[in-house]
Amino acid sequence: MRKIYLNKVSLAEAKQKFFGKFHNLRTEAEEIEVEKTIGRVSSEAVYARRSAPNFYASAMDGIAVKSEITAGASERNPVKLKKGKEAVFVDTGDPVPDDFDAVIKIENVVENEDIFEIEKGVSPWHNIRSIGESVVKSQMIIPSNHKIRDFDLGALIEAGVKKISVYKKPEVKIIPTGNELVKGDSELKKGQLVEFNSKMIKSSITKWGGRAGTTDIIPDQKKMIQKNIEEAVKNNDITIVLAGSSAGKEDYTLRILEELGRVIIHGVNIMPGKPVILAEVNNKPVIGLPGYPLSALLNNNIFVRKLIYSLQGLKSPELPEIEAKVKRKIPSNIGLEEFLRVNLTEINDEIIAVPKKRGSAAMESIVKADGIIRISENKEGLSKNDKAPVILLEGKEKIKNNLSLIGSHDLSLDLIQDEIQKNMKDFYLNIQSVGSMAGLMALKRGECQLAGAHLLDPETGNYNLTHLKRIFKDKKMALITLVERQQGFYVKKGNPKNINSISDLLAKDISFINRQRGAGTRVLFDYLLNKNEIEPSEINGYEQEEFTHIAAAIAVGRGSADAALGIEAAAKATEVDFIPVTEERYDLILFEEDLQDKRIEYLISLLRNKETQKKIEKLGGYKTEKTGNISIVGNK
Amino acid sequence: MRKIYLNKVSLAEAKQKFFGKFHNLRTEAEEIEVEKTIGRVSSEAVYARRSAPNFYASAMDGIAVKSEITAGASERNPVKLKKGKEAVFVDTGDPVPDDFDAVIKIENVVENEDIFEIEKGVSPWHNIRSIGESVVKSQMIIPSNHKIRDFDLGALIEAGVKKISVYKKPEVKIIPTGNELVKGDSELKKGQLVEFNSKMIKSSITKWGGRAGTTDIIPDQKKMIQKNIEEAVKNNDITIVLAGSSAGKEDYTLRILEELGRVIIHGVNIMPGKPVILAEVNNKPVIGLPGYPLSALLNNNIFVRKLIYSLQGLKSPELPEIEAKVKRKIPSNIGLEEFLRVNLTEINDEIIAVPKKRGSAAMESIVKADGIIRISENKEGLSKNDKAPVILLEGKEKIKNNLSLIGSHDLSLDLIQDEIQKNMKDFYLNIQSVGSMAGLMALKRGECQLAGAHLLDPETGNYNLTHLKRIFKDKKMALITLVERQQGFYVKKGNPKNINSISDLLAKDISFINRQRGAGTRVLFDYLLNKNEIEPSEINGYEQEEFTHIAAAIAVGRGSADAALGIEAAAKATEVDFIPVTEERYDLILFEEDLQDKRIEYLISLLRNKETQKKIEKLGGYKTEKTGNISIVGNK
Repeated sequence: MRKIYLNKVSLAEAKQKFFGKFHNLRTEAEEIEVEKTIGRVSSEAVYARRSAPNFYASAMDGIAVKSEITAGASERNPVKLKKGKEAVFVDTGDPVPDDFDAVIKIENVVENEDIFEIEKGVSPWHNIRSIGESVVKSQMIIPSNHKIRDFDLGALIEAGVKKISVYKKPEVKIIPTGNELVKGDSELKKGQLVEFNSKMIKSSITKWGGRAGTTDIIPDQKKMIQKNIEEAVKNNDITIVLAGSSAGKEDYTLRILEELGRVIIHGVNIMPGKPVILAEVNNKPVIGLPGYPLSALLNNNIFVRKLIYSLQGLKSPELPEIEAKVKRKIPSNIGLEEFLRVNLTEINDEIIAVPKKRGSAAMESIVKADGIIRISENKEGLSKNDKAPVILLEGKEKIKNNLSLIGSHDLSLDLIQDEIQKNMKDFYLNIQSVGSMAGLMALKRGECQLAGAHLLDPETGNYNLTHLKRIFKDKKMALITLVERQQGFYVKKGNPKNINSISDLLAKDISFINRQRGAGTRVLFDYLLNKNEIEPSEINGYEQEEFTHIAAAIAVGRGSADAALGIEAAAKATEVDFIPVTEERYDLILFEEDLQDKRIEYLISLLRNKETQKKIEKLGGYKTEKTGNISIVGNK
Repeated sequence: MRKIYLNKVSLAEAKQKFFGKFHNLRTEAEEIEVEKTIGRVSSEAVYARRSAPNFYASAMDGIAVKSEITAGASERNPVKLKKGKEAVFVDTGDPVPDDFDAVIKIENVVENEDIFEIEKGVSPWHNIRSIGESVVKSQMIIPSNHKIRDFDLGALIEAGVKKISVYKKPEVKIIPTGNELVKGDSELKKGQLVEFNSKMIKSSITKWGGRAGTTDIIPDQKKMIQKNIEEAVKNNDITIVLAGSSAGKEDYTLRILEELGRVIIHGVNIMPGKPVILAEVNNKPVIGLPGYPLSALLNNNIFVRKLIYSLQGLKSPELPEIEAKVKRKIPSNIGLEEFLRVNLTEINDEIIAVPKKRGSAAMESIVKADGIIRISENKEGLSKNDKAPVILLEGKEKIKNNLSLIGSHDLSLDLIQDEIQKNMKDFYLNIQSVGSMAGLMALKRGECQLAGAHLLDPETGNYNLTHLKRIFKDKKMALITLVERQQGFYVKKGNPKNINSISDLLAKDISFINRQRGAGTRVLFDYLLNKNEIEPSEINGYEQEEFTHIAAAIAVGRGSADAALGIEAAAKATEVDFIPVTEERYDLILFEEDLQDKRIEYLISLLRNKETQKKIEKLGGYKTEKTGNISIVGNK
């Protein structure tokens, strides 16, 4: 067997060994003008060069007076002060003339031609700002290792500070490697992947206060990689090698780093992100991040983030975390700390986490996640109703207001989601595409407020009702019609194999691609087969499954199959032809009591809105006459 | 009486009227390259232009195989696969050759000369990434009004998106006005103030996603201000006039805005920040911020922040808040919502808020604050043990770890604070300078872990012990010696009035400046007067009070008084001469049980460190032989 990891260790041990080595590393200091210091970090304490104010100033708009002659003033016996002599106008911030020792607010003064009348006396120094009220000369304004904020800047300028000494921004060089990688603007040939990890890593580093540059994409050639690493280490504080951290035959990074310096860690028991390399070359950190984007991101957030902060003399801020409950079993390997993307919804005063697609390369799953749940390494996953910590990717406010829909995928849902967002409503519609049946089960488990389903009952021909009664027993459930829509066959442009009905699928040269078990479209297909007295085994490709309408349409478009069953909108979006077969109804399903929820009320008003309905119909294959209709089943 | 506010209203009403007017205002959209979109906000939904991956790729480093011939492999009966024919090496991301339908991890393969041996079969499509696993062509990646993050960028590039439509950055023009204002790099004449509000406001706006420009400082001339406002409104989304929002005789902004457009709000019942103007000119928002920096900052955070976000189609994120308890009465006017800067410390599992200096111009107080406590408008302040919400200026982690010291001011404390910060310890030393006695009372109330005091007992000549016994009764208290230090007279450079002893203060032409009641130095001065049989009334200026050593020294330096009593380090820092009078001890005081606290242990080790002691002695007038010594009083 080939050697895989040098020394796979726990996350805690990796952190301790790696940061133990670099904890005291700082960038050099540089002096910069105070106005450019926002977000930078002081490398030494800064002291005030002058007091502010440095004269006695009025704290109010009003009149400056001698306090002693105001004594005894009252409503009955107002004191009259001669303008110019015994009292003068002062605005806020004006110096108080030497003879005067108090200021009376303008609101409390009656002005006549050449006198002021006041009805209340003042004590000495009333409404007068003392010298140094704001900052005091020679006192420390900010200590070392302090990140400059807007009001720090204000205080520094006020205190007469012109330049301050700050840590230089940590310089990072990112080296993307791999023969399969091409730039983002290239057309992709088979086997090629777009290189975008460097862009994500660079953005993160910039956000944390570093400055990152990226080399060209380096092919899998040991010499070239080595040359780039050596050069990067010479001129930068941190070097990051992208990909080349696992055990493929062309992964040279490990060997190079063993030769140039010392590999501190190779392999950490986390998922995603196991095959990370943490090394030192010339006492500088070199990090090999795995090629999968989510693995690279996680390791970057764990190891590079903290370094960027500590190089500037800062502790990395804690990531916001909450506890969330899961309503299903989530398996995970013991000995492996897992970071799993989840959606979060508040249901019955509890934050519920629903896991998203696993896999280290599922970008869509992180874009649409609310957080990342951590499954500890000494657990074999989570059981139903377990709680676990979740690192938040979204604000608590969003999560509290999330309305979550789990179920079958329909393109009009994206449109609805976008309308809510465009109108800046106080809630967000989270959508998780599984199948119709899986959606109903999620609703039953309490993972979402809405399920989306189009489940035909072959016996009665109705949609969803039969299944609802079976699953939710006597619970009162509401069905909101989303759309009526065409189901039909996806076929290649021009329908070259002339597929027009279900019996055409029986031909020897026709291959089909099916949907997964529990999908409404699968139920429909089985119903159609049964009605036409066709056995599944007669369909070439019945066992081949895709998980969404779009995926099925794309499979047909690229020639993986000749036909698939699905909705018209997906055909339109993916440029395959569509042969209508039948019409079906898609409902949003919820507990009847949730109809009172303001968010649901808004959702219904949006569905009933003619403008929205027009937009939905434009997607193709939709009828919206019944969109927004509500029916109730069950007797409680 | 002059008209002060047009229509003073509550904060809630001001928000409702102002945002009600501008809620739907957005900047125009512009198309920009995807790589420049970080932090920008999509103005429409973005859909994937391609699927990724768009070929069947290996999900592992390993060998691609035909799954069917691996069936039945076991440890006893490994299946042998011919290299090249029945299995080929594939790295992660490599396309899987057309004939193969599964990948076996390299860890599970034994490689011989021309065959691979495997001990476990695989099912079809095992370890193969399906097409669209990461993103699916034509599906929505991000909706409208979505702020682009690092991984959004990754997903967009992967999905072949080259440009996206985003809201333009809101353009803001800031117009600082006022005859008294000068630029930060000027030398200040009497009556002049540095203009720095525009810099703070600009930094905040940049942070929120806007782009701000600032005009020159405009003098208080109606025509000039008007011309600048008109021009700003024409070319910007938001115009901010700095100062000119209250009722001073030269405040033209209000009149100009009434003439050019409509004043929606003038005067909001908040403190600081009451005299704000919220207006519209040509359907664009114009905001007059008060001149006091903390008033300007607060209004900027309340009114401008939300606008900057909503112009970009975003809701402004909630500011992080916690509940904190106060351990003293904090008065506040009913009908006025007050925002008071506080320090926060966790004591006995509760977060305790201690108010800092009031006043809208106390920059140091915000730089050193942990948060801002909100006292609701329908409360006459807070009573002891009341709880109130606090907007956090620091992370929760810092607050949890704050070690707080309240008491007399000593310059070595700043140095200690900076040492802790430099060494990146897990805690921060918060310092609030009041007097010795006020520090002990704060410790007793449970507002801090440490008090700082140098209270002489005139009867016994001891420091602090007598007062501790009286205040804390039989509680076991610890005293950690901070320093022994010189107390003496501050006099002008060269000691022109030849002040060398306390009896010299009796001369007719000598004026003194005292410290506040409860300050250790005041106690010492009273002791010295008593010892020399001098009555307070014989001292010219006995009633004049300053609150810190530095303030007293500065007052002498600028000629407000001829002499003051204080410590040598303050004289050195402010360039006055110092005439030694006596020596005293300054102690840190805490509950004996807190000696076990890791932070206190570190503090003690720092005090006992010879390097630290040298640095303290360098400040002037300090002896450190006993620094770090501990004594205990009380018998529990």
